[in-house]
Amino acid sequence: MASGPAPQVVDAGLLSPVRAGTPAEAATSDDAWLQAMLDAEAALVRAQASLGNVPAAAARTISELAHADRLDPRELAVLSRGAANPVVALVQAFTRLVAAADPDAAEYVHRGSTSQDIFDTALMLVARRTLDLLVADLEQVTGSLRALAEAHAGTLMAGRTLALHAVPTTFGLKAAGWLAAVSTATDRLKTLRSEGLFVQLGGAAGTLAGYAEYEKLHRGARRRAAGEDPTAAHTDAHTAGLTAGLTAGYAERLTARFAAETHLCAPVLPWHSHRAPVAALAAELALTTGVLGKIAVDVQSMARTETAEVAEPAAAGRGVSSAMPQKRNPALATLIRSAALQVPAYASVLTHTMLSEDERSAGAWHAEWQPLRECLRLAGGAAHTARELVAGLEVSPGRMRANLELTGGLIVSERLAAVLAPALGKAAAKEAMGRASAEAAASGLPLGTVLSNDPSIAGQFDAEELARLLDPAEYTGAAEELVRRSLTRYAGPSGAQGV
Amino acid sequence: MASGPAPQVVDAGLLSPVRAGTPAEAATSDDAWLQAMLDAEAALVRAQASLGNVPAAAARTISELAHADRLDPRELAVLSRGAANPVVALVQAFTRLVAAADPDAAEYVHRGSTSQDIFDTALMLVARRTLDLLVADLEQVTGSLRALAEAHAGTLMAGRTLALHAVPTTFGLKAAGWLAAVSTATDRLKTLRSEGLFVQLGGAAGTLAGYAEYEKLHRGARRRAAGEDPTAAHTDAHTAGLTAGLTAGYAERLTARFAAETHLCAPVLPWHSHRAPVAALAAELALTTGVLGKIAVDVQSMARTETAEVAEPAAAGRGVSSAMPQKRNPALATLIRSAALQVPAYASVLTHTMLSEDERSAGAWHAEWQPLRECLRLAGGAAHTARELVAGLEVSPGRMRANLELTGGLIVSERLAAVLAPALGKAAAKEAMGRASAEAAASGLPLGTVLSNDPSIAGQFDAEELARLLDPAEYTGAAEELVRRSLTRYAGPSGAQGV
Amino acid sequence: MASGPAPQVVDAGLLSPVRAGTPAEAATSDDAWLQAMLDAEAALVRAQASLGNVPAAAARTISELAHADRLDPRELAVLSRGAANPVVALVQAFTRLVAAADPDAAEYVHRGSTSQDIFDTALMLVARRTLDLLVADLEQVTGSLRALAEAHAGTLMAGRTLALHAVPTTFGLKAAGWLAAVSTATDRLKTLRSEGLFVQLGGAAGTLAGYAEYEKLHRGARRRAAGEDPTAAHTDAHTAGLTAGLTAGYAERLTARFAAETHLCAPVLPWHSHRAPVAALAAELALTTGVLGKIAVDVQSMARTETAEVAEPAAAGRGVSSAMPQKRNPALATLIRSAALQVPAYASVLTHTMLSEDERSAGAWHAEWQPLRECLRLAGGAAHTARELVAGLEVSPGRMRANLELTGGLIVSERLAAVLAPALGKAAAKEAMGRASAEAAASGLPLGTVLSNDPSIAGQFDAEELARLLDPAEYTGAAEELVRRSLTRYAGPSGAQGV
Amino acid sequence: MASGPAPQVVDAGLLSPVRAGTPAEAATSDDAWLQAMLDAEAALVRAQASLGNVPAAAARTISELAHADRLDPRELAVLSRGAANPVVALVQAFTRLVAAADPDAAEYVHRGSTSQDIFDTALMLVARRTLDLLVADLEQVTGSLRALAEAHAGTLMAGRTLALHAVPTTFGLKAAGWLAAVSTATDRLKTLRSEGLFVQLGGAAGTLAGYAEYEKLHRGARRRAAGEDPTAAHTDAHTAGLTAGLTAGYAERLTARFAAETHLCAPVLPWHSHRAPVAALAAELALTTGVLGKIAVDVQSMARTETAEVAEPAAAGRGVSSAMPQKRNPALATLIRSAALQVPAYASVLTHTMLSEDERSAGAWHAEWQPLRECLRLAGGAAHTARELVAGLEVSPGRMRANLELTGGLIVSERLAAVLAPALGKAAAKEAMGRASAEAAASGLPLGTVLSNDPSIAGQFDAEELARLLDPAEYTGAAEELVRRSLTRYAGPSGAQGV
Repeated sequence: MASGPAPQVVDAGLLSPVRAGTPAEAATSDDAWLQAMLDAEAALVRAQASLGNVPAAAARTISELAHADRLDPRELAVLSRGAANPVVALVQAFTRLVAAADPDAAEYVHRGSTSQDIFDTALMLVARRTLDLLVADLEQVTGSLRALAEAHAGTLMAGRTLALHAVPTTFGLKAAGWLAAVSTATDRLKTLRSEGLFVQLGGAAGTLAGYAEYEKLHRGARRRAAGEDPTAAHTDAHTAGLTAGLTAGYAERLTARFAAETHLCAPVLPWHSHRAPVAALAAELALTTGVLGKIAVDVQSMARTETAEVAEPAAAGRGVSSAMPQKRNPALATLIRSAALQVPAYASVLTHTMLSEDERSAGAWHAEWQPLRECLRLAGGAAHTARELVAGLEVSPGRMRANLELTGGLIVSERLAAVLAPALGKAAAKEAMGRASAEAAASGLPLGTVLSNDPSIAGQFDAEELARLLDPAEYTGAAEELVRRSLTRYAGPSGAQGV
Repeated sequence: MASGPAPQVVDAGLLSPVRAGTPAEAATSDDAWLQAMLDAEAALVRAQASLGNVPAAAARTISELAHADRLDPRELAVLSRGAANPVVALVQAFTRLVAAADPDAAEYVHRGSTSQDIFDTALMLVARRTLDLLVADLEQVTGSLRALAEAHAGTLMAGRTLALHAVPTTFGLKAAGWLAAVSTATDRLKTLRSEGLFVQLGGAAGTLAGYAEYEKLHRGARRRAAGEDPTAAHTDAHTAGLTAGLTAGYAERLTARFAAETHLCAPVLPWHSHRAPVAALAAELALTTGVLGKIAVDVQSMARTETAEVAEPAAAGRGVSSAMPQKRNPALATLIRSAALQVPAYASVLTHTMLSEDERSAGAWHAEWQPLRECLRLAGGAAHTARELVAGLEVSPGRMRANLELTGGLIVSERLAAVLAPALGKAAAKEAMGRASAEAAASGLPLGTVLSNDPSIAGQFDAEELARLLDPAEYTGAAEELVRRSLTRYAGPSGAQGV
Repeated sequence: MASGPAPQVVDAGLLSPVRAGTPAEAATSDDAWLQAMLDAEAALVRAQASLGNVPAAAARTISELAHADRLDPRELAVLSRGAANPVVALVQAFTRLVAAADPDAAEYVHRGSTSQDIFDTALMLVARRTLDLLVADLEQVTGSLRALAEAHAGTLMAGRTLALHAVPTTFGLKAAGWLAAVSTATDRLKTLRSEGLFVQLGGAAGTLAGYAEYEKLHRGARRRAAGEDPTAAHTDAHTAGLTAGLTAGYAERLTARFAAETHLCAPVLPWHSHRAPVAALAAELALTTGVLGKIAVDVQSMARTETAEVAEPAAAGRGVSSAMPQKRNPALATLIRSAALQVPAYASVLTHTMLSEDERSAGAWHAEWQPLRECLRLAGGAAHTARELVAGLEVSPGRMRANLELTGGLIVSERLAAVLAPALGKAAAKEAMGRASAEAAASGLPLGTVLSNDPSIAGQFDAEELARLLDPAEYTGAAEELVRRSLTRYAGPSGAQGV
Repeated sequence: MASGPAPQVVDAGLLSPVRAGTPAEAATSDDAWLQAMLDAEAALVRAQASLGNVPAAAARTISELAHADRLDPRELAVLSRGAANPVVALVQAFTRLVAAADPDAAEYVHRGSTSQDIFDTALMLVARRTLDLLVADLEQVTGSLRALAEAHAGTLMAGRTLALHAVPTTFGLKAAGWLAAVSTATDRLKTLRSEGLFVQLGGAAGTLAGYAEYEKLHRGARRRAAGEDPTAAHTDAHTAGLTAGLTAGYAERLTARFAAETHLCAPVLPWHSHRAPVAALAAELALTTGVLGKIAVDVQSMARTETAEVAEPAAAGRGVSSAMPQKRNPALATLIRSAALQVPAYASVLTHTMLSEDERSAGAWHAEWQPLRECLRLAGGAAHTARELVAGLEVSPGRMRANLELTGGLIVSERLAAVLAPALGKAAAKEAMGRASAEAAASGLPLGTVLSNDPSIAGQFDAEELARLLDPAEYTGAAEELVRRSLTRYAGPSGAQGV
């Protein structure tokens, strides 16, 4: 369906390369959202049909016509300013579409419903579809991380805290830390996907009164048709609606049917102005993006020219600079970090908008949609990018080892202090090693030489002992054990929760 | 222990009345945090003692002296600028304190440890203690909400969307919505409390190397003492450390013992720079505060002078204005809302700081502490305040009914449109009711009168039927069923999850 | 230029009706951004041409071809993942385009430049163009607000604090408050527009080395051509570059020319990783949106069914509900509020990303673009919507007066307390009025009756005096004076700053 | 004045070392805020006295007693829960204090006033006092930065983009960039300090009705005393108030006097629910902290063990690790960065709360206070810390030069491409250099060797030319010119605005 002037390209991803062209961008596009709203409308009709309140043929017709490519998202977007949400315009356009095919069926479109029932259900459908893609990418990420952790369980490198060398560690342990974090985040997302995505069904103000009213009308009509109602001869539909009470359990049954049609969960109550499900979804996406962002900043830290312990996987056009021929920028990590710097703020909008007054807020609901989309597509884009990053990460054990030795033994001064503690006392040992470290740093001499020259220390060890004590490979603590433990714990896609 | 000049009162709660004087404020105070750090130091010594690496007497002495009132938080705070965290100064002061009582015991304070092991574990202890208070208050809140939902299951009121009357609902359903939201948030907090609060134990860079080193020294000493080691005669402590390998599983056992001593969970890996546990805690607190904030904005909406459907519980000094004698301001709801407007932003800092480079970030870790404290004490203060608000909320069914009738029947025009749909078609019925509604609004005539005057509509009903159709009490849909369902589902403190 | 598969509609405005179809949406679209990047490339070439370092014909050709409709934003967006920004792909595509027309001219595209020079300059061009639209809409808003303030300078209404009636005020003063706020925000935006939008020009790392290198080559070539350089016979271009020093002041001149070509300001230094200009822009947009959001929440407060003091301007399709025929929702205020609930978070990203390490951050820069676009188009959309809202706002002085009298005089109890203060003492007077107010509220009697029945008070006034004291019209303080003052101060588009 | 139980230390700075013990922490403490509220109360009385409406003796007494040490902030904080703000309790306590000294004077405390007049004015006083400290520290920072820029104008180092070496630059230019950013931020703060800090004066709902009422009473009394009023014989105070109109211009005069007494600006209108001044203040503080945070991340980047180009100034206890004797952590930069990671979120609360309904919001106002305090003290703490950091920063030109040469000439490959462009064409030249760079990186050979071995390139230069082209010192572009320009532009504390 065409709209007048050639539409501008509002957003083709130009300002957000982390998600440009990724599956998550498509799954959260206006086209996808429009399809999800149509899916919700159709599922709602089928749910009512399954309870006998909509003719099966009408439900079929409506379902068949519920395709986004029959509608123009731009036209609907501009019309949505009238009602402050896109559903009113969508219902009008879709009703016309159905009426053109079957006027009777058109009577059942959006019947008894409210904008929020459709929009929120669509939002949850979009979320589920995006989470499917996100989880699939994250499971690829964890697979690659397991391989890295295993391959580098014994690859020595400098542990770094507050920007400086601290004590030795292994690259395997670093990868295991990433693995644990991504696995846990993935498990949380899966739990949310199966337990936290709900249909919305409440009618105008959360009482399902409209749905119930139509059910009463149908019930009366059915009873008259069946000759069950002795007074039916002279009553018409509205009188039937008037005199009949609400069918017990109808709200629950309709909600359950709607949930079944959409493969979403059925809530205990309508949640029009109780927005914790949406805020919790956004919070989870922020956690996921944060976990991926941590990998990105680690990669960048190790990729720095002076450090050069890792490089991103090479690919045509990857990491290119518009100015400098020699550059191979850590572009994937940059993209991931750019997402992780945005999502926390977007997610915070979704907790702010929990302050949703009355049965529907005049603004808080409407503020949710774009930041939620950003959370979904940035998390999805970051995961898609991370998959590529960790699958092809180039690791340089040689550079790691060389960097480890840069400080001439200072990186194990904690160990020396520990070993000296029984003889000198813990405080005196730390002080002695502080002095020796400062002297080594100032003089440029290796720590071993400084220690050998210090009579109060030198007497404690022979030369061979000292050499072993100064060997970083001998001071990795439980690194290997921890790597093995992670590999066991996060062995596959169904890994249990933990930190 | 006194510090020099009379300390300024930096924060006694003057700018944050929502938490001033509440249990959560005390549980997150500098005093409480200091105690938690000492608790962590003592638990760590006991954990090592239980594995045979610290003398029992030293562990006892250290535990006995680990009381915050022996230290000056202001002095430590100012000294903490040196290391950018308070642990270094704390360890020095506490070691002096222990040394004064027992110089040998002082050797075991913070042995093998790093600032972050202590601080993060303390943070989790503070969180657990505050969550205990928070959950207790929330369970009081849900109790009061159940009573409100039950008492007002049939109390008619106007459902409101986008600031305007929509269709009728009941106050019981509104209370049931609050109940469902608070119950769900409480259950989530309980899950987090039992599964999501972890000790931190990694040593300088997450390998537990320091702890392992001391274990080796002790193992060597034990073996020599037991005569098990034939070479022991001429070896001394550090040589033992040098030649011995890491005891298999020691890292896991020490972590488990530390967790047992603190009643926190044991993580799979140290999480020094993997901050999802902290971010998830903050996110959960933001959800809780948002759920309470929703109640607050609803109360304010209903309390407005023109609406006057509820009033806050009266108390001496409550709701007083400095200018106006007649005022009884909704002060409790105001406090709760003030918290809910802040926490989303504070929580967002904690997802931002997940971008924590290397084995410890130079700044991201340090940015967590104050916003996390704010999340804890504002959520706690909001819950404490909400408890008082809902326990004494004054509800006016008479005003609710009067407001419902303000629009002369317009509030049920959705129903009329539904009842007319079979005869006129859905779209034509809605349009006819739109016309009639506009005429009623413009003329000031009751909707019933307008409808009676409209030949196309009047013919559909007799007068009695029309009167019943216009009765708001007849158009509450599934409200009562939903209330009952909530009361069953959220029957007690152990209610299951849901929306 | 076509790309392969039919592109999805990523964002046509469906989730953000506040800006769907508004001028600000178009001005910040991918098309617009692409055009701005081409404008920057062309301006840079013209700037160099004006200094003699690019042939005039090449500058002309490049300028003529710099039209966004010759390029495919979707294709560029997807390619932008390679370099993590869209400029590299743009330069390649644009160079091909120019080369097809004139291979010599293609040599001058992006010469000496870096992605950030182009992108940041484009960002500032987009900002300037959007600010032009925004300011124009805001000036329409202030015009309407002046008319409202003037028309209603004496229109009595209840002043409300903490949701309750406080003391009388006038609707004119409320409108004057909006006027002052919008005028001040507009003035700030104008100042920023003329002083705060800068070209970016630094080359690869902020030294302009590339630009300078090419200038040296051209200088050498010119000197040889002019026979000025006796050694020119045997030197070629690169030797000239090598031997020549930097032309003094060339960086400043080139920057000034580039600024002149783009009508932006020239910075003192390149600001690649000094992002205050961008953060300040976002902060200003957040202030503007907040000011408009304040109007929206006020309108919603007054529009509530029980209050009904204002209504939004009617229009076909405006404020329609998908369920309820009688509704005329405050849709414009809802849209504005939805923007104001988002922008603060987006703007906060732009201050976070000021933490931009080195000469260009690997991620912080890239995180700016989408949130800045959101700030621009949401502020622009909100202003465009506010213009419509205030131009047609329907004000009901009758309802304002009726509401003012709802409390039977309680709204002037502050005044009574003041008037009684000389006789009773201030504290006793306030207490007496507190008692009387409570009695009036509880009994439903008018305050006047209660006061007349209270011997300690009744003796202070005769009946006529009491009636005048209880007249809200007599207790509006300086409301009228303040309205007049605002109208003078904010008399036109060039109003001076203030609160 | 004592309160019952020994108060807990809620916050002595333990969780926020960046401001613990700094001047800004004291200037924003509860004590300081309490003093500012008393200052506002006293100034308001003096302002009324100067207009003849309060006896001079009462104003004197009240001013003399207005000292925070006479009141207990903890007691007031806990009482503040009643009214949801601390002013009501403060007025009661302060009135008792004054009444004990002079019962007549007590009649004039807070007369005609509202909580917000006092609190907001106090907030602005606190802001002004903190800004004074902040500006003083920032001017020390700019002084040190000027010295660094001057001393290192020619100190070569690697320019770095996206974590990798880009092209050469100088440390002087880096320092000049910091200088420009801090100078600009300082100028903005000074402008805000002199033009953007306003008294609040509006009375209960912004009409100044209470103040006006008392003025009428006094005017009547004065006229009677002076025998000017022929009807005065039989009128008493309240009748005078009743019959008299508002004195023209009184609101403006009183506001001006109040502003003069507090040295704040006089607003055009009361701004009770127009919060742009507060949001703008927070936004400015976020910009300032961001500018300082940029310095911090640069310092950390250069301080990394592998890079080691700068070190923080040494001091006893500075940069100490609780575990590692050899560490000298960049603690000052860490503190600054910890502030800069928090302030953006806190400032965003202040733009969110601009959505302040009616004449005073029930919650939005109350949510401002603590985040604003955080913005003030974190910005202040960061500036105080930055002053120490830049004053003593240890710069290592030797390491800078060594790092610059790490890549064997790759850092000037942009230059080579430029110089080859005239001969080969720009694209081919860049491609050739890309090939050569990749070969150099892969082989470990210096770029010069690779180029010499490439016949298509080698022929373009002789060996001496190539050596000069590969010298980083020859490719710093306009770095020196830009440094000089900054030093001129930001020559002193009164430097003009710019980027």
